[in-house]
Order: sequence, then structure tokens, then C-alpha cells
Amino acid sequence: MDNFTIVGQKIPKIDAPVKATGDALYIQDIKVSGMLHGKILYSKYPHARILKLDTSKAETLPGVRAVVTAADMPPNFRIGVMKDNPPLKSGKTKSIRDEIAAVAAISTEVAEEALSLIEVEYEELPGIFDPIEAMQEGATLIHEEVKSNILKMPWKLVCGDVETAKKDSAHIVEDTFSTQWVTHCCMGTSGCIAQLDASNNLTLYSNTQIPSLAQNDFIEALNAFGYKNRRVRIIQSVIGGGFGSKLDTYAYEYIAILLAIKTRKPVKIIFSREEEFFATSPRQCTITKISQGCDKEGRLTFREIEMILDNGAYTSWGATTPSVMMLPISSLYKVPNIKYVAKCVYTNNTYCQAMRGYGNPQATFAIESSLDQLAEKAGIDPLEFRIRNSNEPGEITPQRFKITSCGMKECIDEVAKRLAWKTKKEHKGNRGVGIASLIHVGGGARVYKSDGCGTIIKMDDFGKVDVFTGASDIGQGSDTVIAQIVAEVLGIPIEDVNVVNNDTDICPWDVGVHASRTTFVAGNAALGAAKKIREQILEAAGKLLEEEPSFLDIKNSIIYSTKDKEKSTPLGKALRKIHYTLGGKMLMAEYFYDPANENFDREFKGNLSVSYAYGAHGVEVEVDKETGQVKILNYIAAHDVGKPINPLLLEGQIYGGGLQGIGYALGEKMIYKNGRLMNGNFLDYKMPTVKDVPPVQAVIVETDEKDGPFGAKGIGEPGLVPTAPAIANAIYDAVGVRIKDLPITPEKILKALKEKQGRT
Amino acid sequence: MDNFTIVGQKIPKIDAPVKATGDALYIQDIKVSGMLHGKILYSKYPHARILKLDTSKAETLPGVRAVVTAADMPPNFRIGVMKDNPPLKSGKTKSIRDEIAAVAAISTEVAEEALSLIEVEYEELPGIFDPIEAMQEGATLIHEEVKSNILKMPWKLVCGDVETAKKDSAHIVEDTFSTQWVTHCCMGTSGCIAQLDASNNLTLYSNTQIPSLAQNDFIEALNAFGYKNRRVRIIQSVIGGGFGSKLDTYAYEYIAILLAIKTRKPVKIIFSREEEFFATSPRQCTITKISQGCDKEGRLTFREIEMILDNGAYTSWGATTPSVMMLPISSLYKVPNIKYVAKCVYTNNTYCQAMRGYGNPQATFAIESSLDQLAEKAGIDPLEFRIRNSNEPGEITPQRFKITSCGMKECIDEVAKRLAWKTKKEHKGNRGVGIASLIHVGGGARVYKSDGCGTIIKMDDFGKVDVFTGASDIGQGSDTVIAQIVAEVLGIPIEDVNVVNNDTDICPWDVGVHASRTTFVAGNAALGAAKKIREQILEAAGKLLEEEPSFLDIKNSIIYSTKDKEKSTPLGKALRKIHYTLGGKMLMAEYFYDPANENFDREFKGNLSVSYAYGAHGVEVEVDKETGQVKILNYIAAHDVGKPINPLLLEGQIYGGGLQGIGYALGEKMIYKNGRLMNGNFLDYKMPTVKDVPPVQAVIVETDEKDGPFGAKGIGEPGLVPTAPAIANAIYDAVGVRIKDLPITPEKILKALKEKQGRT
Repeated sequence: MDNFTIVGQKIPKIDAPVKATGDALYIQDIKVSGMLHGKILYSKYPHARILKLDTSKAETLPGVRAVVTAADMPPNFRIGVMKDNPPLKSGKTKSIRDEIAAVAAISTEVAEEALSLIEVEYEELPGIFDPIEAMQEGATLIHEEVKSNILKMPWKLVCGDVETAKKDSAHIVEDTFSTQWVTHCCMGTSGCIAQLDASNNLTLYSNTQIPSLAQNDFIEALNAFGYKNRRVRIIQSVIGGGFGSKLDTYAYEYIAILLAIKTRKPVKIIFSREEEFFATSPRQCTITKISQGCDKEGRLTFREIEMILDNGAYTSWGATTPSVMMLPISSLYKVPNIKYVAKCVYTNNTYCQAMRGYGNPQATFAIESSLDQLAEKAGIDPLEFRIRNSNEPGEITPQRFKITSCGMKECIDEVAKRLAWKTKKEHKGNRGVGIASLIHVGGGARVYKSDGCGTIIKMDDFGKVDVFTGASDIGQGSDTVIAQIVAEVLGIPIEDVNVVNNDTDICPWDVGVHASRTTFVAGNAALGAAKKIREQILEAAGKLLEEEPSFLDIKNSIIYSTKDKEKSTPLGKALRKIHYTLGGKMLMAEYFYDPANENFDREFKGNLSVSYAYGAHGVEVEVDKETGQVKILNYIAAHDVGKPINPLLLEGQIYGGGLQGIGYALGEKMIYKNGRLMNGNFLDYKMPTVKDVPPVQAVIVETDEKDGPFGAKGIGEPGLVPTAPAIANAIYDAVGVRIKDLPITPEKILKALKEKQGRT
Repeated sequence: MDNFTIVGQKIPKIDAPVKATGDALYIQDIKVSGMLHGKILYSKYPHARILKLDTSKAETLPGVRAVVTAADMPPNFRIGVMKDNPPLKSGKTKSIRDEIAAVAAISTEVAEEALSLIEVEYEELPGIFDPIEAMQEGATLIHEEVKSNILKMPWKLVCGDVETAKKDSAHIVEDTFSTQWVTHCCMGTSGCIAQLDASNNLTLYSNTQIPSLAQNDFIEALNAFGYKNRRVRIIQSVIGGGFGSKLDTYAYEYIAILLAIKTRKPVKIIFSREEEFFATSPRQCTITKISQGCDKEGRLTFREIEMILDNGAYTSWGATTPSVMMLPISSLYKVPNIKYVAKCVYTNNTYCQAMRGYGNPQATFAIESSLDQLAEKAGIDPLEFRIRNSNEPGEITPQRFKITSCGMKECIDEVAKRLAWKTKKEHKGNRGVGIASLIHVGGGARVYKSDGCGTIIKMDDFGKVDVFTGASDIGQGSDTVIAQIVAEVLGIPIEDVNVVNNDTDICPWDVGVHASRTTFVAGNAALGAAKKIREQILEAAGKLLEEEPSFLDIKNSIIYSTKDKEKSTPLGKALRKIHYTLGGKMLMAEYFYDPANENFDREFKGNLSVSYAYGAHGVEVEVDKETGQVKILNYIAAHDVGKPINPLLLEGQIYGGGLQGIGYALGEKMIYKNGRLMNGNFLDYKMPTVKDVPPVQAVIVETDEKDGPFGAKGIGEPGLVPTAPAIANAIYDAVGVRIKDLPITPEKILKALKEKQGRT
């Protein structure tokens, strides 16, 4: 099984035809018989007291089937990580996206008209929109029942002794970096259809990334509604992008369920693009004070970080991103002494969510920007400085990560070579080069009690297989990777593999799409099941061909002896023989893979992932000193991916991540003014488009990850992790100004250039 | 596991709520995005030459998307058991249901209008509508390329030596019996939606009874259309009755596929009630010449049967019913010497299909009518005569059936007791009693190369399970029986079992719904998978509870030690422990059950089924001599069912079968006149309705079938097998006339009474 014919090949996505022809059914496309359409009324003010809420006019509008408010929800029913978010709000509203009423009607138009007929009287209250302000003694409490605006999430990591290390350091830098809100910009907006059957079992059509966990959430919700011990089925539509945005369950889903209960009809709620902007949860913005030191030889001595995260008014997974930030903070480069404290702070802003990288880009921006400052102070070339501190295979990091495969140095070398680092460093004009590296989980991440994924495979009489995977394909291509793995093991063409990934009634449990884990975890689950099928085939074929099964192999749907050319049979023929024999059977197998990684202990230590992904991005920029405009001349994204299963999709992940990172670095920002989003549309929100794509080279650095399926590691998120600091470092190299607050806009560069000129 | 809490209980069908509320999606209800509607043009004459077929006007009708004729089908593409049936006919039409063109349009109405615009010129040809006539030398050949109207199906069974037995017999009777065409009268008419994806893989929504075999048929069809090696997925809608009518693939399905290919859109074809009557395939009509003999003590010495079956113009499974007829012919009662020859004959009539009992009712009508004649000739009470010849456990019949459990005598005893046979035999007035028995397969029937069924089970963290079964629930309640078996084994409530039965992508292979095999075969498959899950649970729970797994049991979702009351844990808690442990898993299992029965050898001998079902029906009638009207005063249906898994559904099968049998006996008949159906609607076709239901007692005679799931045997078909002869015998007992031609109409009785009067 060493000469792979399908694994390692650039195979186009198997779902490309249905998507290209328009046959793919996104949540927008799904219609259920008798379906009603729901719309949500949001608060007019980011902070206000609701004095009156009158739905009577809306209720009498023809075509309206139900109008609901907080009074229709079970009392004290709250959602979210901290259970601080009632799906429909009463009393005080705490953010501009607070849901206060909803309508189900025969059409979206009628539902919208009904919303306009709901009469609300507010008393506007002063809001808190700055986490620093919110942290002050005596600040108005966002949640009165909670005694502080600082969340009780004890994000603190201490490794070694930072204070002593400071004393022993030859060079120390300290600075503060900040990052902005950005949003996922999924082409497919959020939506769901909630449908109850006669026995009050729930089917929820959704574009969630976490079908199994969502199922649990909605079972709890049905319990709260008084429907105990009911079945919940999640059917995932084709998903037009996730990036973390669909990693939680949301108010609109619970509202759809409530409306379905009230009307006894299926209710569909689909977000408009405007809602997708202001009523979904962006990447958390951060303020990071960082100090790092090194010895005379440029070896890192310590890293100390204090971080403030704006949590917004409610709590979703955004608040837990510090757990992943700890990964680069403790383990990006060899740093013996670490101290990290993070505070998440309630404000009247929008609340935040997971987004590709899950905090890693924010942390890495601070670390890698600061690292350049330190290298400069130590008088060492920043690339050389990184090589000197690079991670290595076999290392156990201060946070107790066990580094197995590690191609970090190789990635840095690739950047140096392809960017012609040494030549370019002697830059002329306004050009400069920058580099930044990354570490990320690459072999699952045990953040839940299980990090597992199940797979079931059945094979028909002609050698075609159906694979039921827990994995969700949210556009990243997991179906294709899983199909490749199964096809490779079974020696069949990829066309003969059908992947079923969208129904909790059918697909085994999986913790969800996060942490770049799908290829690794779901891939290993598929591999395990496929191997069981292969074993059954070879054992039976051994009898048919009178050959030791260990000498048999399967390629191109032919079973053959590797010893004796005369011994071979078409796979389908053998399968029919197995089936059509008395006491025969068709081949089926199940496998559940849960990686041998560890939950953090109380000190946030433990081997979170079975393997770690590395990479280094290098960039050459040209800065226009008149306009502040940054032009990316060359972009090298080198990634240690283990062994690539599908270089085409892998490069796609790197290109996509890189571009998303470039947007993060240079342009994207959700502009909130006193809690209100000012640019909630694609015209004003500056997402890079095809004309902004710079020349990006995706460089695959192969290592062999012993636990990975065919040696592979995860690659979903890393592409955007080091982008912003690499660009920031290049800009500094080009024109001598360091922008510490993302995004790096021309205005900020011009302002910094002006200030610098003033100083000189 | 001996005190069953769910198996053996009268549990309502688990699909009752969705059906009662109208939420169930029958094929009529299913809509696929972009779907067109197809309609078929049938031949105007039962036998005609098509001189001209002009579709040009139809093609230009607005809303028409495609018009197809035989010219659009792959040349020489034929369907059916003998591959004698082109889905679209050209040249000569051979029956009134011959499909000659079809239309796909934006609505059924437009499609129908288009049909009326198709111009056909015919030259009507004389037809052959009588199989006897068709068998004559020189008769016009229905299929010119086949040299004879008698099908090359060598139905012949010889056991022992009938000629010698005749000489040794004390009494011999000989007579001829005939049966009519009846149709299945499914409440859900036939229909399908054919949908091709961009890669020309086919999804067919259908109410077929044979998803796995249909999949094979359509793979072959795609091959014929030039789409090699494509995937075919059969999605079964909720099915409103099958009774054998959906045991084959049909022209309309291939036409829908052709129209989908032509239009590149999904195409739906739904039969109107009129089409369901004339264009689906009824139970084959038969002419049976039977001779039986016995010795002085009334022990059967031989049975000799010659049978002619009207095959109609094409060949579906109806032509193979003699294979099942052999079962009662060789093995109903102990008969040492058997000879049976059957001929299926092409005519210009409608072609025939499987229907509940698959020939057994036709054969049993002749056998059991003739048996009463023989008993009378021997001077023995007919019930006593049957007891004397009754089958017994341990018997090996002349056709080599191995009788395991057998409650035939007990069934006859129940009839005698409940009908007060002895008292009633001394009848007064125009009342009479009759009895007839049955043998049928009760443990699968190996008519295909595999008689197997696969099951996959997965269990969630709360003890709820999803069961993917190959079995199709066509209304008979298999989902409920499977759920009961799984719930019993796993000690969970039936509400926690979800049965998925409708999708070849998901469900393992199964040969289809026929031969009363589902409870036995699919039940055993579900049992096997559930036991594997149970084993995993108890092994893990043994570790948790520190107890030997063999001492553990599960009831009401609690795992407990049968030895130590202190040791117990809720099932869900244990499952979460199993899952949320490092290297944990969720529970999945697969199982394929193929019974150890045998295909017939070339002499049609072999143990077709693992077990056999028995029963006896007794009936008391009153015949109105003025009108010929038969009133059923009392009806006893005693059935040996092994152990009942769900007495409620089991009784439902007996009631339903009994009533269908009563319709067969007394009223139902498709009246064909020169190949044209005269009564193709529910007004003229006399199906019994609720007001015709006599007092039926379903009597369950328990035996213990060692190979059955929880001791059960099949019961789907037996209910209608002995009904007609029991009634015929009772009528004879009442008024002394024997009607040998079904149905037994008042006209026939009056005529017979008149003839009898004339004779005396």
C-alpha cells in the first residue's frame, strides 16, 4: 500500500459538479412542505429598557401565523457558553443585535411587514463600548446579576519563572498590539428550518458546523419547552462557508423552534446579508500587552502577555479563544518562561465567536511583531533570529505539547530561499521583506470531552461504497479527502465512493469542524473503517484465489497477488461471490477514532493535539509613501502539512487562508460606533476580492506525521495565522514604521510616517 | 433476557403518528426542485400494428419539454424476467397497456394535453385472449421471435410415483378449478421521480418493494443508455401498500429515466387510479386440473396437478408463481407422491405479477376444494380428514422441506373448537361450515442468490439508536417489529429507536419484501446487530460496575446486576462514560443475516425456507337460495406464527389477509373482455369495504421457531391463502353446490343451484 494512486493526487472536489451546476441545496434552497417564514425584530438601541412591546397589530396582519416575544420562551432559558443569552430578550436590551420579537408568516415579505407593525417603546440607556472602560470599578454592569463585567474565565498560564528570566535577559522589548473585529463573510448566510413531528421530535435543517453538539443543545431546548426525551435530528444543508461562524447554536435557531411549536408548522429563518453582518458573531478584538526577552545569542528567555478581549454583551466561543492563544504564546519558538493572563470583558458591543485560527492570529500578530522588535534590539537578522529559536521534533514545550513532526525550520528556509531574503534585505526604495511563523494544532484538539469522529462504510456488490462520516464538509473539501482515503485503501476509483455527511440520524458522532481537525480525525476514522473492509475482502479473496491474504493487494478494482501474477479477480466479482454464498454477506464496517490527545489540566497544560502544524510566511511589500498604500510584491506561504492527501485542496486552503489573512492585515474591519455597525455590507466592508490577490506561492513542506492518516496533519486554519505580522514586519522593513493596530490602513501608515518624520 | 417487556406486546405502529397527521411523504407528495411531470400514451388496441406515430404537434405544445417514443430507447433494451418487454413499444402492440410514447411537461395537465396531440395510426390485429387458444398449434405468435406462446419455463415437480400410487388408492377425485385476475388495490398508486445529477448518477424516488434489486436493474439501464458504471440511488417514499405489485421494475420507471435524460430535469410519473388498474400487473389467473387420492383410512396417496397460467403479453414475476405453488402442492398435508406441471402462456392480455401468497392461494384453492371432494368420497369428515393428513414437526416433505416447528394440527383444533364444528356440521337451513389449511414459507425463501438482509445500528450518548435496515416497510409494520426487537435487546423504550429503511445509499442490501420474510430475516439481522451493541455495553458496564458482564442486564435504560442490587447505572450515563474516555467511542455495529435455506435444485427440490408457517381457516356461511348471496356468519383464522413479536400487527396481517381472501373468494375480479379491462375503478371493481367485514377471529397458535427472532415466523401472506377454499367448502356444505371458478358470485351459485335442481 505504499505506491499511492489516489492519496497525494490533485483530485478536484467531488462535490464540484453539484455546486457548479446549481444542484447543491443550500439552506436557502431547501423547502419543506407547509413551511412558514420567520423574521426577527432586533433592538433599536444597543442599551435600552423596553417600556412597551405591543404585538397585537402584527398578529392581526393577514398571513401572520405567530408572533413571539420573550414571554413565549421558557422562563430562565439561556443559551451560550456562559448561559447568559436568552434567545428573546425582555427588560433591558444589551446590544444592537438583541432579539426582542419574531414573526412566522406565509412569506418573508409578510413577516417583514409584521415586524414593522410591532410597537416598541424604549428608554435608551448609556452604553459601554470600550472594554477598558467596562473594567473600571463602578462601571455600569452589563449583566446586573453578574457582579462584574469581567467574565469569570480564569485564563492564566504560567510556565517557568518570567521574573527571573527578565533579570537574566540581555534584551527586552515591550509593546502593545491590538486587533479589530472581522467577520467570516460566508457566501452562504445563516439559516435553519425547524420542523416538529406529531410526537414533538425535532428536525432542524441547518448549516451548522457542529451537528452532534447542536443536537445536544436542542435536546436541552426541547426539555425546557416541556418536551422531554425527544429525538432531535440535524440535517445539514450544503454549507456555503463556516470559518467558525456556525460553531455554536444561536438565538435564531431557538426562535425558529419556538415558532414551529407555536404554529405546528415548519418554520424557516434565513439571514439577509445585512443580518449576517450585524447579527452574527465576529472574531473577537483584542488588546495585547507583550514583553519578550532574549539572551546575548538571541535565544528567547521569556514571553509575558496581558490581554483584554471585548466579549460583547453575551458569551459564545469567542470568549474561549485564549485557550488556543496559549498555543503560540507558550510554544511558538522555544521559550522557557511564559506568563499569560487574559480578561474577557462584557460591553454593549456585539458578542464574538470562533473564527479560523480561534485567537491564534491575534496572539501571533503580537508575538511575531514583538519578535521583530526584539531581533532588531539584539542586532540579529529577524529570519536568522527565528531559525535560532525554531521549534524542533521531539521537543516538549512548556505547556507540555509533545512535538512529533516539525518542519518549522524547513518552512523558514523555504521563505528565505524563495523570497531571496538576504538580497532583498538590502532593500532599495520603499520595498521591504517580513517573515512570521506559526504553530497550530494539527492532530485534533481535545477541547471537548471527546475529540472523536465515527465512520460507517458499506460496500455494494459492484465495489461501490457509501461512507457515513461524522465530519461536516463546510466547503473545506473533507468529503473529497475522506473519499480519497477510502478509495486508496480499497483500491477503487474515487467515483465509487459516496460520502454521506449531513444527517445526525445517519452519521456517527463528531465533535464538529474546528481546530483544523477534520482531515486528521475524520480521516483516521475513515481509514480505520476502510481497513476493516479491506481486511474482510482480502481474507475472502484469499480463499477464492488460494493465496495468503498478506500477499494480496487491490488496485483499480482488481484483487491480485503480489507474488503470483496468475492469481487475480475483479473486485466486484469477488464481492458478489462473498455475498451470494450461503451464509454470505455484504461488507460493512464501523470505526470510531478518538485521538490520544489530552484535555488541559487546571493549569491549562497538557498535550492538546496529537501533532502540531507549522509554517512560515514571508512577504515582500512596496509602500507608497505618498498614499500609504501597501502593495504585496511576493508572498511565500510555506506550510508543514505532514504528508499531503490532496495538494490541490491543500493549496486551496493555503491560498484562501492567506487571502483572508491579507484582508485581516490590510483592510477588513467591522466599524462599530457606539455599538452600532457602520459598514455592514460588502460595499463598505473591505474584503479582498479577486483583483486584490497578490502573487502567493503555497509551498508544501512534507514531514511524516506518524499518527496522521497517510502521514497528514491539519491545514484548515494555519493559512491566515502569520499573515498580518509578516506584512507588518515587511512594512517596517520597507519604511521604518510599525503599525501595531490592525488593520494596517494607508491612513495609519501615513500618520506613522508623519510622526516618524516629526521625530527625525 | 427471558421476560420480554417489548417483544410480545401489542405496540401500535411507530409510523402511525406521521401517517395519521398527514406528515408522511408518499411518492405523490414528494417534490424535487425543477421537477417535470411525465405521462404515458398507451396502445389503443390490445393487438395492433403501429402504422404511423407522429409526435410533432405534441412537441410544439407550450410547456412540453420532451416527447419520447421507442426510437429514443436504446435499441434492444428489454426489461422483465424474460427480457421480453421493451419499455416503449414499436412495430406491434401486444396488449392494451403497451406504452408507445411519453411526454414530460411542466404540469400533468400539459402532459395529458400533449398525449392527445400525438397522432397514431393503427392497423388493429386479431388478438388471442385465451391461454388454451394460445397454446394451440398454429396460433398466432405473441412474440414472433419466440417460437411458441408457451414460455420456456420448465415448471415440473415429480416426487415419488404418482401412477403406482393411483393404482394403490382406495379413492380418487379429479376436477378442474380456475381463478381470476385480481389486483392489489394499493391505496398508494405507483409512481417515481427520476433525477440525474451532473455526472449522470441516478436517484430514483420510488415506492418499490425491492430497492436493492431495482438498483441493479437501473444500473443496467444506465449502462444501456451509455452511462457506464454510474451510481444509482433508490429513495423509497412512504409506501401505501405493495402486496407484490411493486416487486419488479416497470416501464414507467424506465420512461421517467429516459425523460430525465432528455430534459436534464427530474421527471415524476404518478399513476392515476385508472392507470393503477389497467397498467399494473394483477395476480395471474390459472386453470388447474387436479387429481388426488387416498387409502381406505383416508391417508393421502398422491396429488397430481396440471396448470395453465395466462401470462399476458410480457413476463414479470407472475410467471414464476409456480415455484411457490409447488410448496402447497408438494407439502400441504403429508402426500408421498406428487406430480405437477405448469405452463405459462403468452396472450394479448395484461401481464401478471406477484401478489400476496405468490400463487399459493390459486394452488390451495384447487387442493383444498379437491380435498373436500376426496373426504366426501372416502366418507370421512373433512376436518377429521385434514387432521389425519396433517403435517408435523420433524417431517421432511417430498420436496425436501425440513419442517421444524409446525402447529397445523393445533390450528385445525382451534377451528374445530371455535367454530363448534361438530355441532355446526349437523346444519339446519342453508348454513354450512368449511375448513381449509395452508402451508407457506415462514423463514425466508431463497429465490434469489441471497436471501439476506443487513442492519447497521448506532447508539447515541443518551441511549437512543438509529437502525439502518435493508427491510422496506410497505405498510406491513416491519419498522415497528424491528424497533421492538432492538429495543428489547438493548433494554430501551421503543420511542428511543429510529428505523431508517428508505435509501439504498444508507440501508444495507436486502432482497426485498416478499415471501413473508421481513420479520424473520430483517428481524434476525436487527437482532444480530443489537446483540453486538448489547455486548459492547455490558462489557464496558462490567468494568464500570465491577461486575461480570454475564450477570448484567438492561431494562428501562438501566444497566443492573442480576446478582447485586447495589450495582446499577443509567444506560446514558454509561454510554457517555464509554464515549468521553480517552480513546473512547460511540457504539456502532453491523450485521448481515442470510438464512441457512436453499435454492431449489434443477428438480425444484431443496429446503426453500428455514421454517414454514401453518394455519387453518374455518368459516360458517349462510347462503340465500333466492339470491345466491353468501353471508359469512363466523370466520376463524388460526395461524401458527412461531412466537408473536407484536400481536397487534400480527392480527392486523391476519385480518387484512383474511379480508383480501374474502374479496378473492366472493367478489373481486378484473373483467377483461378481448384484452380490455371493463371495470378498472373502485366503483365497478368489487373490493370488500368496511361494511363487508364479517366477524373474523384471529387465533394465534404459538410454536417456538428455533431460528426465528425471538421464536417468530413470517405471517405477511398466509392470511389470504386458505380463505377461498374454506368458503367454497362451507358453501358446498350449506347448499350442496361446489363453485370451482373464483370468484364465487351469487350468479354462479344460483346457476349451480338451478343445475343441481335440474339434476334431481
